[in-house]
Amino acid sequence: MNKAMPFPIGAEAVPVASPSTSLRELILSKDLTFLMEAHDGLSAAIAERAGFKGLWASGLSISSALGYRDANEASWTQVVDVVERMVDSTNVPILVDGDSGFGNFNNARLVARKLKQRGAAGICLEDKAFPKLNSFVGDRHPLADIYEFSGRLKAVRDTTGPAFVLVARTEALIAGYGLDVALDRAEAFANSGADAVLIHSRKSVADEILDFAKKWNNRLPVVIVPTKYYKTPVSAYREVGISTVIWANHALRAAIAGMRDICGRIRSEESVAGIEERVADLEELFRLIGYDELEQAEKQYLPKQTA
Amino acid sequence: MNKAMPFPIGAEAVPVASPSTSLRELILSKDLTFLMEAHDGLSAAIAERAGFKGLWASGLSISSALGYRDANEASWTQVVDVVERMVDSTNVPILVDGDSGFGNFNNARLVARKLKQRGAAGICLEDKAFPKLNSFVGDRHPLADIYEFSGRLKAVRDTTGPAFVLVARTEALIAGYGLDVALDRAEAFANSGADAVLIHSRKSVADEILDFAKKWNNRLPVVIVPTKYYKTPVSAYREVGISTVIWANHALRAAIAGMRDICGRIRSEESVAGIEERVADLEELFRLIGYDELEQAEKQYLPKQTA
Amino acid sequence: MNKAMPFPIGAEAVPVASPSTSLRELILSKDLTFLMEAHDGLSAAIAERAGFKGLWASGLSISSALGYRDANEASWTQVVDVVERMVDSTNVPILVDGDSGFGNFNNARLVARKLKQRGAAGICLEDKAFPKLNSFVGDRHPLADIYEFSGRLKAVRDTTGPAFVLVARTEALIAGYGLDVALDRAEAFANSGADAVLIHSRKSVADEILDFAKKWNNRLPVVIVPTKYYKTPVSAYREVGISTVIWANHALRAAIAGMRDICGRIRSEESVAGIEERVADLEELFRLIGYDELEQAEKQYLPKQTA
Amino acid sequence: MNKAMPFPIGAEAVPVASPSTSLRELILSKDLTFLMEAHDGLSAAIAERAGFKGLWASGLSISSALGYRDANEASWTQVVDVVERMVDSTNVPILVDGDSGFGNFNNARLVARKLKQRGAAGICLEDKAFPKLNSFVGDRHPLADIYEFSGRLKAVRDTTGPAFVLVARTEALIAGYGLDVALDRAEAFANSGADAVLIHSRKSVADEILDFAKKWNNRLPVVIVPTKYYKTPVSAYREVGISTVIWANHALRAAIAGMRDICGRIRSEESVAGIEERVADLEELFRLIGYDELEQAEKQYLPKQTA
Repeated sequence: MNKAMPFPIGAEAVPVASPSTSLRELILSKDLTFLMEAHDGLSAAIAERAGFKGLWASGLSISSALGYRDANEASWTQVVDVVERMVDSTNVPILVDGDSGFGNFNNARLVARKLKQRGAAGICLEDKAFPKLNSFVGDRHPLADIYEFSGRLKAVRDTTGPAFVLVARTEALIAGYGLDVALDRAEAFANSGADAVLIHSRKSVADEILDFAKKWNNRLPVVIVPTKYYKTPVSAYREVGISTVIWANHALRAAIAGMRDICGRIRSEESVAGIEERVADLEELFRLIGYDELEQAEKQYLPKQTA
Repeated sequence: MNKAMPFPIGAEAVPVASPSTSLRELILSKDLTFLMEAHDGLSAAIAERAGFKGLWASGLSISSALGYRDANEASWTQVVDVVERMVDSTNVPILVDGDSGFGNFNNARLVARKLKQRGAAGICLEDKAFPKLNSFVGDRHPLADIYEFSGRLKAVRDTTGPAFVLVARTEALIAGYGLDVALDRAEAFANSGADAVLIHSRKSVADEILDFAKKWNNRLPVVIVPTKYYKTPVSAYREVGISTVIWANHALRAAIAGMRDICGRIRSEESVAGIEERVADLEELFRLIGYDELEQAEKQYLPKQTA
Repeated sequence: MNKAMPFPIGAEAVPVASPSTSLRELILSKDLTFLMEAHDGLSAAIAERAGFKGLWASGLSISSALGYRDANEASWTQVVDVVERMVDSTNVPILVDGDSGFGNFNNARLVARKLKQRGAAGICLEDKAFPKLNSFVGDRHPLADIYEFSGRLKAVRDTTGPAFVLVARTEALIAGYGLDVALDRAEAFANSGADAVLIHSRKSVADEILDFAKKWNNRLPVVIVPTKYYKTPVSAYREVGISTVIWANHALRAAIAGMRDICGRIRSEESVAGIEERVADLEELFRLIGYDELEQAEKQYLPKQTA
Repeated sequence: MNKAMPFPIGAEAVPVASPSTSLRELILSKDLTFLMEAHDGLSAAIAERAGFKGLWASGLSISSALGYRDANEASWTQVVDVVERMVDSTNVPILVDGDSGFGNFNNARLVARKLKQRGAAGICLEDKAFPKLNSFVGDRHPLADIYEFSGRLKAVRDTTGPAFVLVARTEALIAGYGLDVALDRAEAFANSGADAVLIHSRKSVADEILDFAKKWNNRLPVVIVPTKYYKTPVSAYREVGISTVIWANHALRAAIAGMRDICGRIRSEESVAGIEERVADLEELFRLIGYDELEQAEKQYLPKQTA
């Protein structure tokens, strides 16, 4: 982010392009796009400042920050409220992990409409039932009926209009089905209004993902989440024409490691003197959250005598 | 935290002692107590697991995580909702930074009552007006009228009853007044029902804090926040009989540093392979949030055939 | 409500009996109990003032007041927040319509735990899937699997402990099954920890309800909702030993009629002069919401000079 | 409201004109405009159906429905959430009672920005401090400093841009100042970006209001709230060129009367048979909340076999 005013909380939003337009351009561009996970206003601001052009509002990370399990314990309005804080803290488009849509087509379109209103750029819906369980936990991951889930996608598309990015995610590979099922589902979802397809895998190698991408042949842009097969170099993704890579939970995991280490040291050292240099100073925090804008605004809007 | 089930989200809460009783014991004990800052469910769970016996729900940190400035941008219900998530993620008492009470006595008692209901152990109120600005920002920090603020404390005490810890914080030193004013205010606040006095300073040495503690002579327990005078060894606090030290924002600042570094590396390396060992793994996250409890509960409550 | 201070917003809650104890006594008493529907803080205060000893936080009514359809459009936290306002506005126990539990056993126990924390006296869960549709709308009302739903009840019972009333509602009759299925389900739900059974019907006569009550023979108290079979005199319920009658939506429907008529008149008359006598005056409103308590508190807690 | 689909909860919003444009046209039109109070999604839908072209989201009424006193007990986000439900339930512009702005200029612009995002058409701010007390209660109504309040208005104007209606309300007359002070304040507020001026009075005759309007001479449109001087015929307002009349709490008061009467009768009659004809039937409710849209959508988006 290269704006002078990083967090114009009070400023009129005059975006050159809408968030969804920006996100669509990123996903459609020939360059490989990277979306960085964020889970609250602060982490979103940090990821933007690091140079990421778009963010992933991860369901796992948002749940975790709230102290919830990734099993739809957080209500849909709690998730929408978190996303609002992320949007308000940044100027890059945010793709929201909408899980399975928080119910049926009617819940899905309601959530999508509200996310759009709060300034999100798009939603990603996965072909599972409600409540879901995180894809990396346990072995029970029944897929949603393909027609029922297609209805969810159509309802979201009709509700939000074209100016909102809709990514359809299939858990076919994680549920133990083969490539054919994944491709059939992707095809059905493309016909139901999806703008892109997210193909998920929890193998430690990217083979099935790369196979999918080759056979799919960019019928729609392909989005991937290399959490488990993280060792694959991104050149492999560029070769098969993958559109977008989501680093899906690494900001959260970095925060955990940072907090766990510092808490442990403060606890055993009974002092913060030794860790002062290892944590961000308050000035960095104030820059991230735009305190300079507030200081300027106070000069502008508060009476002189009290300023 | 040494319980087998770290996050009993669905379990009946049968605390041996209430949160406020535990917090009162910590503050009254002869040992120096340390409260660690936390700002959401996750950071609270991490601080507890590090061994802290109590937590500080920091207004600055909670605001920052939400992407708000520490100027009462977050509504009082947003703060209460965050505290609820912290309480639900831990088993140690939480003292909540209630800023100046979100308005007058009526707002203060409403916020306190709601915090108690959500399971917080106590509230800390400071003698400033609404909206406040963070004590480390700028030079305008007018104090609240001493009688008006005493009324706020009395109203909270009468509303929440004795089973809720009330800490009165004076910003007299930060506002540029001397020790006498600070002591007078502390005296008035003690007479208004406060359980402890928080004396705040933004000097880089602890002299005025230590002077206050000596002259105050433990009329009520003294709480301090050594953010700026962090180099003072805690032995100095023990010597003058200070009750409680709050490490007020270090978990947040650790999270910022951790996320900023990792986001920067992922951005420049276009890969997470290099940082995988430096971030927490998903298993650590799942332990923090109590996924084992959910797994067990699924076995217990879901029909066999679908489990 | 016979307390001097009708709305003790700031007062310490020192209930002689917990809400759930009061509700259990009502349901177990030999007298026929009536629960009046309410849907927000105001309607709850009005129903209490009319003399009702307990309230029904109706899902249909709460949804409607929010402008949502009764199809689980309102998130579970939105419903919990509404119930909190109802509890804070009254001193009588409130039984909450928890629909089907907002998901599976894990969602149900989370909602129940939160309702208990906010001061509700109990929850009623019905044996349908999520999302639900109002029982009076349409013809698609598939029942939940009996074992899966029993697991939901057990999870709620284990989570909230005995000090929370759990009412199990079966939609067997509405779904088109016969009395035997209804009785089997009621039996299973009683064995899963329910405190009472709600048997629902949308026929215009009470025959099947009365048959159920006779055959059930008070194995657990029976709760009914005579919205469609409203012409049946309550003596018929007393005869078969029914425990509790819920007037499930009549406050809301009274409010609609009142507002529709007055809005229409103001619109056509371009004046409020003609309707002034037909609407409540502000003093009645102020009494309902406890403005006298605030006035007194201002005298007590605000400095004299500004009071 | 004359649309076939009264509550397009899932439908793409493609308004011909923005809400603020519609509201500005109403206020600027030569015809006297009437805004009807509403306080939740349901009351908003009823007022719209009665033919009102715009609504007033009353602070008193919203507080009351929530069971709060009109003393800024409801948090600003709670108010914003209520307004969102009103917007989503209607297709007419809504002017929101923003009280004194929930704090200083920074709080005011944050609230205004959020109300705009949720679809409100404008905000009305009054020249009082935070927390406020309802203008009809008690005698302590100190006015805000004129320069400080003008700063609040400017901040809101700069933040929301011209496409949001800003009404400045002066309580000068209620605070006991004369016409000159009221006119001075109105002038200052006009110079600070207000689109209209609301002049409030709690006398039982309209004299001072009419005097104000004559002397002000439509420098900006004048908005009035004839709650106390309700007997004045609207022709008097038309004569002096008043722009807009707000019926500020009559829907709420109609609801109270309706619910109080019906609750009383049900309580004493132990039956709803006698009042069934006096309350709205469920079909009226279902029409108000748009159940037909959901029924159609189920046919469109749910798989045939389960529909």
